[in-house]
Amino acid sequence: MSGPRVVAISGGVGGAKLALGFYRVLPPDSLAVIVNTGDDFTHLGLHVSPDVDTLLYTLGGLANPDLGWGRKEETWAFMRALAHLGGDTWFRLGDADLALHVERTRRLARGESLSQVTAAVARRFEIAAEVLPMSDDAVRTRVSTDAGVLDFQEYFVGRQCRPVVNALNFDGAAQARPGSGIVTALSSPEIEAIVICPSNPYLSIAPILALPGLVELLRRSKAPVIAVSPLVGGQAVKGPTAKIMAEMEIPVSPESVVRHYQGVIDGFVLDERDAAAAGAIEGCGVPVRIADTLMNTLRDKERLAETCLAFAAGWAPA
Amino acid sequence: MSGPRVVAISGGVGGAKLALGFYRVLPPDSLAVIVNTGDDFTHLGLHVSPDVDTLLYTLGGLANPDLGWGRKEETWAFMRALAHLGGDTWFRLGDADLALHVERTRRLARGESLSQVTAAVARRFEIAAEVLPMSDDAVRTRVSTDAGVLDFQEYFVGRQCRPVVNALNFDGAAQARPGSGIVTALSSPEIEAIVICPSNPYLSIAPILALPGLVELLRRSKAPVIAVSPLVGGQAVKGPTAKIMAEMEIPVSPESVVRHYQGVIDGFVLDERDAAAAGAIEGCGVPVRIADTLMNTLRDKERLAETCLAFAAGWAPA
Repeated sequence: MSGPRVVAISGGVGGAKLALGFYRVLPPDSLAVIVNTGDDFTHLGLHVSPDVDTLLYTLGGLANPDLGWGRKEETWAFMRALAHLGGDTWFRLGDADLALHVERTRRLARGESLSQVTAAVARRFEIAAEVLPMSDDAVRTRVSTDAGVLDFQEYFVGRQCRPVVNALNFDGAAQARPGSGIVTALSSPEIEAIVICPSNPYLSIAPILALPGLVELLRRSKAPVIAVSPLVGGQAVKGPTAKIMAEMEIPVSPESVVRHYQGVIDGFVLDERDAAAAGAIEGCGVPVRIADTLMNTLRDKERLAETCLAFAAGWAPA
Repeated sequence: MSGPRVVAISGGVGGAKLALGFYRVLPPDSLAVIVNTGDDFTHLGLHVSPDVDTLLYTLGGLANPDLGWGRKEETWAFMRALAHLGGDTWFRLGDADLALHVERTRRLARGESLSQVTAAVARRFEIAAEVLPMSDDAVRTRVSTDAGVLDFQEYFVGRQCRPVVNALNFDGAAQARPGSGIVTALSSPEIEAIVICPSNPYLSIAPILALPGLVELLRRSKAPVIAVSPLVGGQAVKGPTAKIMAEMEIPVSPESVVRHYQGVIDGFVLDERDAAAAGAIEGCGVPVRIADTLMNTLRDKERLAETCLAFAAGWAPA
C-alpha cells in the first residue's frame, strides 16, 4: 500500500503554482491536491469548476501562461458567435476549454460524481497526481457586499472584485461531505506534509476548512500542516486577498493569516519581504520558515516546494 | 395587416436552397418557412435542431458551402479537445455552431419555446423571413431498420444511412401542435403559394404533414400547394431519399412522390430529366410544371423559386 507524500490544499492560480512545484520535485504519483469547489457555478447550463480546471490545466501542461486561467493556445470562435447571438459573454469560455465543461456537465447529468469526472479528466491529461475536488456536494461561496449578496463569480469576474466585502458565506458547506478520495489521501502511510497553498485564505481555503470533519482530519494526520503565506511584502501577489482583508477589518499582515489558520497549522512559510513579522508569528506558537515565496519561474515553484518539504522534515510532533 | 406571400415547407439542405431562392426573389419579409424538427435531438446535453439551423444559417448568409451543414469559416478546437477528453465525437459541432446550441438550450431551459428562440436568433442574424419550427412540442423521428429502431441522427450521421429501412415513425407527432406562427402564416391574406421544398418526403416532410390539423390547414388555404420533386433523373440529389424508397418497396419515381402527397398538393414541379413521368402524374389529377430543379448556383435557386411562383400564379381553384 502506498499513497501521496504531500497533500496540497489549493484554490486556483497561486495554489496551482505551488502544486506544480511539488508535482515536479516529487515522483509523479506522490502528490494529492484538495481543491476548492466553492467557486463552481452553472453558466450557460454548464457546470464550471474554475479552481479544479486550473489544477487540471496546470498539472496537465495545458494552462494559459498569460491569462492565469483557461488553456494555452486557446481560440474564441464560440464567444464571438455567442456575442452575435446576444448571449451572456461576461464569463469567457474558450473553444477548447468549453469541451471540459460540456463533458463534465454531461457526465454529472448521468450520475457521475465531480470526483469521478475529475479523476477521468486527469487520466486523459496524463496527470499522475490526484486532483481531488473538496466535495461532491454543492458548496457555493456567496459574497456579502455593499452591493448586496453576490454569487462568487458575479463578484469575482462580473464585478471584478469592486464591491466592498463585509462577509463570506459558503452555502451548503455545513451539509457537504469531503470528496471521496480525501480521507484516503490524508491517511496516506507515506504522508510527509500537508501544505495549505498560498491561495486566498478567506475565499479559497476557508470553504475547504469549513467542510465538516476536515479540520479534524488535518489535526489527526501524522504529517505537519504547513501554510504558505499568500502575502508578499504585505500584499497579495494576485487577486483580492489584501483588499478583502482590509474591507473585513482584518489587519493586512501575515500574522492575521496565521491567526486565521491557528489550531490547524503546525508551521508557516513567510515571505522574506515580511521577515519582520516572524517574531510575532512565533509568539503565536507557530514555527516560521522564511523564504522567497514569489513563483514566477518553474524553478521558483520547485524551490518553494522543496522549502516546504525541508520545513516539514524538520518538524517533530509536540 | 400583411403576411407572407410564400410559405415554404422544408427539411434541411435541399429545402433551404429553394427557401433561399424565394428569399431573394421576394421582398425580404414575404417568406415564411415551416421547418422539420423531427431530426432534433439532445447531444452532449445540448438541444440540436439540425434543419432549423440549416435554414437559419442559409438565410443568414452563414452556411458552410462545402459541408452542406454548419457554419462557414468554422473551426474545430472544441471537437479536438472533446476527443482528447474521450467524449462523444460522432456528431460534429463546430466552435461557432456550438454557440447556437448552447444559447438555445439555455433559453429552452428557462421556458422559452423553440419558436421564440428561433425567432430571436433569426432577428440576430438579420433574417427578415419567418423561420417557423413545425412544432414546439417534441417530435422525434425513429427509423426502423434491419439493425433495430434507431434515433434519426444515429441512423443518419452515426451509421451514415447504411442500415436498411423498413419503417419510419414520428414519435410524439400525434400529440404535437403546429408551432405558434404556422396558422397565422398559412392564413396570410397575401399568400400566393405554399411550396413543399425538394426535401426528403418520407424523412423530412412527412413529420410536418403528420402534425394534427396541418394537412387540413394546407387544404383550406386559398393558395395552391405545390411540391417540388426531390428526384432528379430518378435519383436524389443528396441524401438517402432514393435508397429509403427502394428499401420501403416504393418505386423510385416522381409518380411515387406525387402519390405520397396526393390529397395535399395542387401541383408538382417535375425535373426536366424526368419529363417522361409527366403524363402519369397528370393522370393522377395533379398539374405538372417541368423545370430544371438542380440548384447549384444562387441563380438556379432564384430561377426555381420564380418557376414555382409562376406556376402558382396560373393556378385556378377547382
